[in-house]
Amino acid sequence: MTLPQITPVLLCGGSGTRLWPLSRKSYPKQFALEIDSRSLFQATALRLTGRAEGCDFAAPLVVTGSDFRFIVTEQLASAGVDPGPILIEPSARNTAPAVLAAALHLLAADPGAIALVAPSDHAVPDPAAFHAAIARGLPALEEGRIVTFGITPERPETGYGWLELVGPVSADGTPVALSRFVEKPDSAQAGTMMAAGNFLWNAGIFLFRAADLVAAYRRLQPAMVAGVEAALATGRPDLGFLRLAEGPWTALEDISIDYAVMEKSDNLSVVPYDAGWSDLGGWDAVWRAGGPDAAGNVTSAHATAIDCRDTLLRSESPAVELVGIGLEGLIAVAMPDAVLVAAADRAQDVKQAVSALKARGAPQAETLPRDYRPWGWYESLVIGDRFQVKRIHVHPGAALSLQSHFHRSEHWIVVEGTARVTVGEEVRLLTENQSVYIPLGAVHRMENPGKVPMVLIEVQTGSYLGEDDIIRFDDVYARGQGAKV
Amino acid sequence: MTLPQITPVLLCGGSGTRLWPLSRKSYPKQFALEIDSRSLFQATALRLTGRAEGCDFAAPLVVTGSDFRFIVTEQLASAGVDPGPILIEPSARNTAPAVLAAALHLLAADPGAIALVAPSDHAVPDPAAFHAAIARGLPALEEGRIVTFGITPERPETGYGWLELVGPVSADGTPVALSRFVEKPDSAQAGTMMAAGNFLWNAGIFLFRAADLVAAYRRLQPAMVAGVEAALATGRPDLGFLRLAEGPWTALEDISIDYAVMEKSDNLSVVPYDAGWSDLGGWDAVWRAGGPDAAGNVTSAHATAIDCRDTLLRSESPAVELVGIGLEGLIAVAMPDAVLVAAADRAQDVKQAVSALKARGAPQAETLPRDYRPWGWYESLVIGDRFQVKRIHVHPGAALSLQSHFHRSEHWIVVEGTARVTVGEEVRLLTENQSVYIPLGAVHRMENPGKVPMVLIEVQTGSYLGEDDIIRFDDVYARGQGAKV
Repeated sequence: MTLPQITPVLLCGGSGTRLWPLSRKSYPKQFALEIDSRSLFQATALRLTGRAEGCDFAAPLVVTGSDFRFIVTEQLASAGVDPGPILIEPSARNTAPAVLAAALHLLAADPGAIALVAPSDHAVPDPAAFHAAIARGLPALEEGRIVTFGITPERPETGYGWLELVGPVSADGTPVALSRFVEKPDSAQAGTMMAAGNFLWNAGIFLFRAADLVAAYRRLQPAMVAGVEAALATGRPDLGFLRLAEGPWTALEDISIDYAVMEKSDNLSVVPYDAGWSDLGGWDAVWRAGGPDAAGNVTSAHATAIDCRDTLLRSESPAVELVGIGLEGLIAVAMPDAVLVAAADRAQDVKQAVSALKARGAPQAETLPRDYRPWGWYESLVIGDRFQVKRIHVHPGAALSLQSHFHRSEHWIVVEGTARVTVGEEVRLLTENQSVYIPLGAVHRMENPGKVPMVLIEVQTGSYLGEDDIIRFDDVYARGQGAKV
Repeated sequence: MTLPQITPVLLCGGSGTRLWPLSRKSYPKQFALEIDSRSLFQATALRLTGRAEGCDFAAPLVVTGSDFRFIVTEQLASAGVDPGPILIEPSARNTAPAVLAAALHLLAADPGAIALVAPSDHAVPDPAAFHAAIARGLPALEEGRIVTFGITPERPETGYGWLELVGPVSADGTPVALSRFVEKPDSAQAGTMMAAGNFLWNAGIFLFRAADLVAAYRRLQPAMVAGVEAALATGRPDLGFLRLAEGPWTALEDISIDYAVMEKSDNLSVVPYDAGWSDLGGWDAVWRAGGPDAAGNVTSAHATAIDCRDTLLRSESPAVELVGIGLEGLIAVAMPDAVLVAAADRAQDVKQAVSALKARGAPQAETLPRDYRPWGWYESLVIGDRFQVKRIHVHPGAALSLQSHFHRSEHWIVVEGTARVTVGEEVRLLTENQSVYIPLGAVHRMENPGKVPMVLIEVQTGSYLGEDDIIRFDDVYARGQGAKV
């Protein structure tokens, strides 16, 4: 029997602050939080790749923000996943416009397209069980229904939305019609639902025929359909990305798909799922998903718990040792430039840390020491009064812009791979342990012509070392004078 | 009236672990912990410098370990204190041998020498009051007495030794004869002493005529006197330090001056002191000495307390932001390479963190990223598989050894000051923004011939980058092939 092909739609434009300091605006949770050496985004893409038992996945369609587009391609490449279309949202407009753009894009190519929309920042520890759940949902699509997935509740959670079914959860896991969405409940209501037997957690995962979902939008959100169609029609291809048009996109309502469409639809079916799931929506959830030991502790590599109970200790870098002594009900997350220590029951207030740092102008509020660019990334190793040292990592085949500086000269020393370096009229190849000097004012470019990453150390000297001291003469990524990314 | 001159004897050979991660074996508390931008050692030296009200101080005599000798000279120089003799202990033997060595050394130069022995890792926030207390003690020396200082107890502290006086504390602060030393008490005993009115805390500070103290040692510890005399007599001057002879020194008993001499002496007088003092013997003491705010919190720069109570939050680097949320009775200390989070009532167990890290081989147990050497310091900025980048800071007039490496070549880029660089037969001056390449195997040396610090960035490339890949041909600091410091 031929399985219908499913296109995963990976939503990864979000930039939450509840997992600060790991998750920052410049490099949010879905890319930053790793489980078994894979980011959540990579794990999500790998879970929905190729042929699985009962499912056949097409290359994923990714919807993301402009700042994250090169993180997406780099993470997919290093996970070995071939990407499908990558849609760039000019600004974040929540899930309703994003999913609609994906559905319209798929529909244009294939009237029978089937999509599975999945957040890319959740943990689903048992992919085979998840594939089986998807397979159980597929027959309902034949009847034009939209399938969502309901997680068997493990506790009376007040932080999630819930799904009420028309009847009890099926014993064999087949879909049951949805009665209604329930907003985040209070504690008493959550307890009642937990006991009732026909309530599940809303995981925000949807399976549908693109044609059916678009029809629902046309009926319920006709203005949004017109706007998203315009953003797609006047969007422009850009180095393999499809950049949605800013004008019509920015005019769209900022609204979730639940509010905009799903809650108003009467053709939803729910597939129950009980093989483990977490939205990792805060450090308390990360603690729970980490599998606390007998004393209730979860510790990462380079973290040591001495006489602790019910405590999460995470070092997010092999360069940082974190030690906890005599702690109870605590969360501590250590990075080389920022450390959070919070009572576990205050995990949802971590955004206050971000606000406080932002108010003080501390860069740690939103950015990491490592700065991702189209061509790779760099990090500042040390900044002095009149010098700065950077480590620069250039992807194979990538090139920085042809540029010059008014206020600094630069020494480049290649330490890994091979660089092609342009200084003025001269073009040279430099390999490991070779160096070049770029005088102040000289027009220069750095490229990686090779098949492996190229790493170089840049030592800048000058009276002003800001990133904005740059004149760009030519840029394969079509960035302007002011643009960074 | 001519004031008798007092030689401060600064003991700074200790390397406690209770203030980890700030205090490490390689750079302990007295040098690492700063109050108002001065280390405790610097503050101690400055407090006992020049002419003060009622006191006239000679240049300090310092007793320290070999690993710390250049930290001592650098910190004294940057505080503007001219050092007197610096005695190097070949190994730590507690305070009895150290104070005896100082007293014998002073006595040899001046039969009437007066010394004030002070630990260099305590906080004394009111120097004028301390000078006044010293002045009140001076007359007792005329009668051959040894004066110690007793701190008015602020709480029934079980972590300190106490002093029992023969009668009540004098109203005018004049000395009262000591009855006995009291070992660290239990809680009930501490409460009783607190209420009694003739008990003070033992601060470990002593004022005496060198001749009187040496006489006491001769009577009570004749073997120790013979050993220390031998260590002094056969010690050798070394770049301005007096290095005590290892053989006789290592044979000495490891014992405190309290046990060895003071507890057995009957000529001690106690000057009461009530103007504030802390031994900063743990993070709880640092919290107390920091002056908690209305909510009981003490926060450093780059530390933010949100809804915390009775909590110490310290960021020990401007590069690290530390945020606490909803904490109570907690200590958190953040550095770029190590973070401690501990319950405040477990502050005395911080040494367990050091033991745990040592057992795992983590360098953070004992060393800092910055490594102090005779000529200055360096820190590793990044280490790759086949490369390492270091920032190297060379004091004015200092020189690294003439050396070569078997496994690495080096690029040097000067970013501050001026370097004199020898490569093979060639000697060149390099200034800011100039660079030089040291091929594998080349004999080379780096010097700072100037009047300001010289900073350079070193990029090493090679298959093995360990510090022990070094052949030394000539070294102004007379270090051998294996020696680091």
